[in-house]
Amino acid sequence: MRKGRFRKSLARSAARFSESISFDRRLYRHDIAGSVAHAAALARAGIISAAEQKKIQSALREIEKEIASGGFEWDESLEDIHMNIESALTKKIGYAGAKLHTARSRNDQIALDVRLYVKEEIKRTAARLKKLQKAFLTLAGKYVDLVMPGYTHLQRAQPILFAHYLLGQVEGFARDAARLDDCLQRTDVLPLGSGALAGSTIVLDRELIARELGFNRVSQNSLDAVSDRDFVAEFIFCLAMIGTHLSRFSEDLIIWSTSEFGFVAISESFSTGSSLMPQKKNPDMAELARGKTGRLFGNLMSILTTLKALPSSYNRDLQEDKEMLFDSVDTISAALDVFVEMLPELKFDRERMKAAATDPQLLATDLAEYLVKKGTPFREAHEIVGRIVSAGISKRQKLNEIALAQLRKFSRQFDADVVKVLDVRRSLAARTAVGAPSPKNVKEQIKHWRKELA
Amino acid sequence: MRKGRFRKSLARSAARFSESISFDRRLYRHDIAGSVAHAAALARAGIISAAEQKKIQSALREIEKEIASGGFEWDESLEDIHMNIESALTKKIGYAGAKLHTARSRNDQIALDVRLYVKEEIKRTAARLKKLQKAFLTLAGKYVDLVMPGYTHLQRAQPILFAHYLLGQVEGFARDAARLDDCLQRTDVLPLGSGALAGSTIVLDRELIARELGFNRVSQNSLDAVSDRDFVAEFIFCLAMIGTHLSRFSEDLIIWSTSEFGFVAISESFSTGSSLMPQKKNPDMAELARGKTGRLFGNLMSILTTLKALPSSYNRDLQEDKEMLFDSVDTISAALDVFVEMLPELKFDRERMKAAATDPQLLATDLAEYLVKKGTPFREAHEIVGRIVSAGISKRQKLNEIALAQLRKFSRQFDADVVKVLDVRRSLAARTAVGAPSPKNVKEQIKHWRKELA
Amino acid sequence: MRKGRFRKSLARSAARFSESISFDRRLYRHDIAGSVAHAAALARAGIISAAEQKKIQSALREIEKEIASGGFEWDESLEDIHMNIESALTKKIGYAGAKLHTARSRNDQIALDVRLYVKEEIKRTAARLKKLQKAFLTLAGKYVDLVMPGYTHLQRAQPILFAHYLLGQVEGFARDAARLDDCLQRTDVLPLGSGALAGSTIVLDRELIARELGFNRVSQNSLDAVSDRDFVAEFIFCLAMIGTHLSRFSEDLIIWSTSEFGFVAISESFSTGSSLMPQKKNPDMAELARGKTGRLFGNLMSILTTLKALPSSYNRDLQEDKEMLFDSVDTISAALDVFVEMLPELKFDRERMKAAATDPQLLATDLAEYLVKKGTPFREAHEIVGRIVSAGISKRQKLNEIALAQLRKFSRQFDADVVKVLDVRRSLAARTAVGAPSPKNVKEQIKHWRKELA
Amino acid sequence: MRKGRFRKSLARSAARFSESISFDRRLYRHDIAGSVAHAAALARAGIISAAEQKKIQSALREIEKEIASGGFEWDESLEDIHMNIESALTKKIGYAGAKLHTARSRNDQIALDVRLYVKEEIKRTAARLKKLQKAFLTLAGKYVDLVMPGYTHLQRAQPILFAHYLLGQVEGFARDAARLDDCLQRTDVLPLGSGALAGSTIVLDRELIARELGFNRVSQNSLDAVSDRDFVAEFIFCLAMIGTHLSRFSEDLIIWSTSEFGFVAISESFSTGSSLMPQKKNPDMAELARGKTGRLFGNLMSILTTLKALPSSYNRDLQEDKEMLFDSVDTISAALDVFVEMLPELKFDRERMKAAATDPQLLATDLAEYLVKKGTPFREAHEIVGRIVSAGISKRQKLNEIALAQLRKFSRQFDADVVKVLDVRRSLAARTAVGAPSPKNVKEQIKHWRKELA
Repeated sequence: MRKGRFRKSLARSAARFSESISFDRRLYRHDIAGSVAHAAALARAGIISAAEQKKIQSALREIEKEIASGGFEWDESLEDIHMNIESALTKKIGYAGAKLHTARSRNDQIALDVRLYVKEEIKRTAARLKKLQKAFLTLAGKYVDLVMPGYTHLQRAQPILFAHYLLGQVEGFARDAARLDDCLQRTDVLPLGSGALAGSTIVLDRELIARELGFNRVSQNSLDAVSDRDFVAEFIFCLAMIGTHLSRFSEDLIIWSTSEFGFVAISESFSTGSSLMPQKKNPDMAELARGKTGRLFGNLMSILTTLKALPSSYNRDLQEDKEMLFDSVDTISAALDVFVEMLPELKFDRERMKAAATDPQLLATDLAEYLVKKGTPFREAHEIVGRIVSAGISKRQKLNEIALAQLRKFSRQFDADVVKVLDVRRSLAARTAVGAPSPKNVKEQIKHWRKELA
Repeated sequence: MRKGRFRKSLARSAARFSESISFDRRLYRHDIAGSVAHAAALARAGIISAAEQKKIQSALREIEKEIASGGFEWDESLEDIHMNIESALTKKIGYAGAKLHTARSRNDQIALDVRLYVKEEIKRTAARLKKLQKAFLTLAGKYVDLVMPGYTHLQRAQPILFAHYLLGQVEGFARDAARLDDCLQRTDVLPLGSGALAGSTIVLDRELIARELGFNRVSQNSLDAVSDRDFVAEFIFCLAMIGTHLSRFSEDLIIWSTSEFGFVAISESFSTGSSLMPQKKNPDMAELARGKTGRLFGNLMSILTTLKALPSSYNRDLQEDKEMLFDSVDTISAALDVFVEMLPELKFDRERMKAAATDPQLLATDLAEYLVKKGTPFREAHEIVGRIVSAGISKRQKLNEIALAQLRKFSRQFDADVVKVLDVRRSLAARTAVGAPSPKNVKEQIKHWRKELA
Repeated sequence: MRKGRFRKSLARSAARFSESISFDRRLYRHDIAGSVAHAAALARAGIISAAEQKKIQSALREIEKEIASGGFEWDESLEDIHMNIESALTKKIGYAGAKLHTARSRNDQIALDVRLYVKEEIKRTAARLKKLQKAFLTLAGKYVDLVMPGYTHLQRAQPILFAHYLLGQVEGFARDAARLDDCLQRTDVLPLGSGALAGSTIVLDRELIARELGFNRVSQNSLDAVSDRDFVAEFIFCLAMIGTHLSRFSEDLIIWSTSEFGFVAISESFSTGSSLMPQKKNPDMAELARGKTGRLFGNLMSILTTLKALPSSYNRDLQEDKEMLFDSVDTISAALDVFVEMLPELKFDRERMKAAATDPQLLATDLAEYLVKKGTPFREAHEIVGRIVSAGISKRQKLNEIALAQLRKFSRQFDADVVKVLDVRRSLAARTAVGAPSPKNVKEQIKHWRKELA
Repeated sequence: MRKGRFRKSLARSAARFSESISFDRRLYRHDIAGSVAHAAALARAGIISAAEQKKIQSALREIEKEIASGGFEWDESLEDIHMNIESALTKKIGYAGAKLHTARSRNDQIALDVRLYVKEEIKRTAARLKKLQKAFLTLAGKYVDLVMPGYTHLQRAQPILFAHYLLGQVEGFARDAARLDDCLQRTDVLPLGSGALAGSTIVLDRELIARELGFNRVSQNSLDAVSDRDFVAEFIFCLAMIGTHLSRFSEDLIIWSTSEFGFVAISESFSTGSSLMPQKKNPDMAELARGKTGRLFGNLMSILTTLKALPSSYNRDLQEDKEMLFDSVDTISAALDVFVEMLPELKFDRERMKAAATDPQLLATDLAEYLVKKGTPFREAHEIVGRIVSAGISKRQKLNEIALAQLRKFSRQFDADVVKVLDVRRSLAARTAVGAPSPKNVKEQIKHWRKELA
């Protein structure tokens, strides 16, 4: 590539700084698929013969096998995946190989490779998300009647079903899946044929290429097509959001697995020990998933920063799109794999969760709502119960330990039926509005999601 | 709210640190709309009477007018928009007002307000994007035949039509519009009725509320609904991507408006001067749009960081979702408004752009493709022309200044017809593949987008 | 400023987009201080008379008072703080005011203003940090003998003194203070006199200006001086690190104030309630401090993004340095104020902390170290005790419940003296290496810090 | 490590997710240095014999050589660098090796390794920065008299010397060097001996270890020491700032190497070509340096996000500190190496720079300052010259083409001596204030920096 115009070779420091073959080799399957389709279009346009096309195709497939088997010799001086493969091809078949790059630039070629890669990884990520959602659902089925305290501000708030908590996780990951699907639509556009930025005076049938490669649409502006990395940023954003959801569940797990909470025991297969302290069993997988949110956000910031204020059209800065993309994909893949396997092995402590859920303070709102049903405006009812709670704290009395006579000093509307209020199961059963945690709702949601994810 | 359970008032430093009324007052219309719908559901559930509902509704509308007119007195000690409005309501109508907060928490209330706000702002941003795209189209129509150098790496690469460049910008903003639309679908979910995190023992008709407020869907998990801020992060991401596209066009404008390029003159109405240098006319709007990419990325990083590793359900950290959201919305709104108005006043210098486009080096690839058509494999043709270019540089000869005899020393396939190759218009006319910048393609794309954006 | 070269006024949308007076007015004291010093240099250079200097100075001080008292009329059409003040000055004293901007540009002027502001805020932040450290020290003194479990991975690990934990917080904030001090050195450089980018043909005595304004050094390169915002980025980074430390302590507080841990009760003055749930008392200040880490990181990302790939010298993008700076300063100031006041009101539950600290599992490492002292290589001792722990878990036996005979089945080196090992106080007393939590060390550290912070 | 307490082995997905040996092996020299020093302390404390110490030391040095030569067999199931080396050691020397981990945890061990690494890399980065500054200085010496236009807003502003521009770059990198030095002070603290978080009941002489390893200080709080990653974040920030400065210079280079500016030609050894366009020579090194700002910022965001809201003491999330650290170090090292070599090969086009510098508009401010010296207040002079410029633009007249009679219509103070003003060399010579670009100042600054960097 330098042979014509250049008289000096690239300095070694520059070669090291600019090579991408150490990481873009991962795209070899996509690069080869693209070249096979490109050869078909060249043949159709009469630039190569049918025989040449065949030679190119079979040599490329050979190279693909060599790479897959580890037998391919990478040459760092050839900079990138494209030149490595083109060079190997030409070594194999000569003349015909030297024709392959007609009406193509590395600019549209790499845009193609990355789009093929992202399309594939979106689908794989979506499949993993589904597995994770199913794992949550299975847990929800297993613990369908287990009550626990719902928290806000990490303070005990109101009782919920543990399965309701699990279904909440499913909802978050469902949004992630929807985002991936939308991102896929914008990724599914063929850039090949855009040349360096201005197409070519040799005209290829891009619709043919799109069909060969399974693209839904063909890009309509060559200048835009070679520099558009929106889909990369969007996919990295989607992965960051998945990471956010994983970090949230991880935080819950870490807190719940403390001695103090004691809600969950993580299987030894997903725990690690200490090199110093013999008794330790640590929730490392959850911690790592939480910690790795850092790199997911960092990768997003990387690609955005790289894109900021770039002049239109292709600039070499765009080479920086790949490593962060690969890293986010690898991170989320590995994390999802771990969580899918770890979830079925989580042991929730029914006794401790139930015990915590029967803290009578969790039903203070029910008490206020009892008064509302008797006619007290809610704001007043809230204040009355607040005073009862406050008095109870002074006397170290929980809500269920206060005598009716005592309650009636705060409001005349308290009556004998108030005892029924302070019952967790009853409280839950009453929460029947759409989305609320009544056992009936929860069971229906489990059914709904089972169908959805089938 | 503190009256019942608390005996001490909030410390002043804490009140200052935690108040949100200084910024969430911007949501007053949405808060009131939500309360009106909530009152309808309370009436339906028999918690308030029809008369009370009416009183609540008309008092809320009164408050809305007071706020709009600047006549409302905000009370910082009431923390936030919700308590300010509830307090004003109760002052106006007493008893009935004190009932409004039944079966509702500020957790689901603020989730509602922000969703209503985001839905509205997505639509307004989409409308602004359309205006901007139209402004680009109008320019494309005006300069439809103007040629310019296409650049890669900011080096002259191949000729394009300026209108092709402008259409490339339209493509980018079209993706932004599509992203907004997808984000809207995920935002269009009613959270109200989720209570603090667990619904309520007083059961409201949430479908009714959704209809009143124009929501397509009702959230299905109360725990998730009070803490889901995915739509905020996604919208802020969409706005950051718009900013990325604006920063790219701004960078082009800034470079093109230098004395050295001299491609464009920005109208005085969109330029500023220097306090020291009397001759200066600066492209400040483009610089500011470029610089403000910083805050757009920063706001995205803010919301993501805030969400990282939060325990499930509502935590006060979530209050931090609003200021960055507002800031990104305001930034993009203002930037789009400026660009929509600035574009029609840009004066492109046809002579300088044409002169630059006729740099014969831009046609080096055409020369190689000429050889390809005569049978030379592209890689070889590339090398031959590279050597010609290199020799030309030594002799300070441009490509069109090299005699045929000279060319034939590099390749026997050069012939008299080679002179036709070195013509910009001819080069452009040949670029007829889908997405390439032939005049015909460009005109069709202009037509296509006019229809699309009508 | 536009009067000479411009014939059209700035478009309204452009004025709105580019004005800075809505936020840079905060710099009025620094702007005026700079102008007073600049006038002194102009007088020394003979550009203005002594009488004019005096007039300028007293009019500026008048303006300063008007602004401080709220009586100044800001004019948005004058763009920024500089032109607002210059315009008011010229209205007051005419001719002399119109001379003030000689040999000065807004580029060096704003660089000066921001440096003066940052110098001041570094010192104020450092003072607040010291107060916070003292508050930690006071707590350490109050609870000097209280034991608690040390955690790693949020799992109980080894016993520590609570005061040791508090001293750990002091260490983190000490690094913040050191960083601020280093940042101050790099901020303490006078940029005024650099003009727009190239100084001026009217030569001023910059050393004089530096002395007047209390700068240690004078910038040595005008081009660099007008565009250097390193000190802004560095200060925002320092503030982000303070935020990181606050988020860590906040996380601890939030977890410790759960019902399940029950280690600490936050005063009502620093807690808030729920609009729905009457019993709630939430650790909002800690949550907000944790959540606001988002904006601190976001602001850092903002300024860095803005600086990325800016051409050398002044560009309008640099206007974007201020709002994020102000926001980070305000956030950390408010957070530190709250924590300084909240700390003395925290009530730690000695009984629960002590009870948790006496979990015998915390001493598993001591048991291994007991074996080491008897000659077992540590790695073997670790494994032996690990097996004992594991066996204990199966039998629901804690370490202190296992009989000696039983222990000896795991290692012959266990002897009657092993009982002494399983004592928390003894374990702590033995930890006497530098930095370890023996009571003696902790007391010495308290003494050390008291002296340091006096 | 799992042998004692655990009955199940780590799941494969979990092992893959949590291993660090694939990247922390880079720390092997530091890990071994730490172990050698630790062994010395164990010997001093009587935990191992002098003979054992010697055996440990020589086996560790053997392992070091094996790793350096590529002959060491890494075992992924051993998780990390520490266990790999300990395991190899024990295989080599048995019993004694099993004693090495006494009174040490991987928590303080990795904190040590990373500090040793950062100390080393700070020094190497500082050395590279110095080389780069020298390369700028050499250019400044070579082009000492060359004038060029100074730009603001990328618009021609006032004349400067090119050497002044180059010295401005030196200033920025000098601040980077100072920041590194400050960071070094905070990194130079020994954490080893802090154990898991609470030291040990086996007391080691930490001052001895510090001396062995060349640390200035010993950490004073074990809890803080195992989790403090401030120095990592700070170093990554310092590297991001270096990247910001490189991105600025790169942007200048890219713009200056366009056909339109034509100020600089980058050597072929630091340029690349196009796979499609035979004539292309692109400034890829500058583009990559600019693009890689993305990863530098991303890495900073990564580490900060990871640290956000971590509970105090060691958490596994902290494992995430290394990859981003390594990546930022590698990026800046490679970039500095390239720029140090590329700079001497840059060819600046004296003619084009000089031609651009003699644009008479650059002296508009000089004209205003001429009037000031004749007694016109600057604000009035600015307006007069602005009007002259504006009139000139209408008539396509440059400032030096306007007759005196014409000028006198704008101000009576213009006189025959005005012709002297419109001379670039004279303008520069007059700029003698500290930091301004007079040739004398510039030469002195070159001398100053030569001494400073010697």
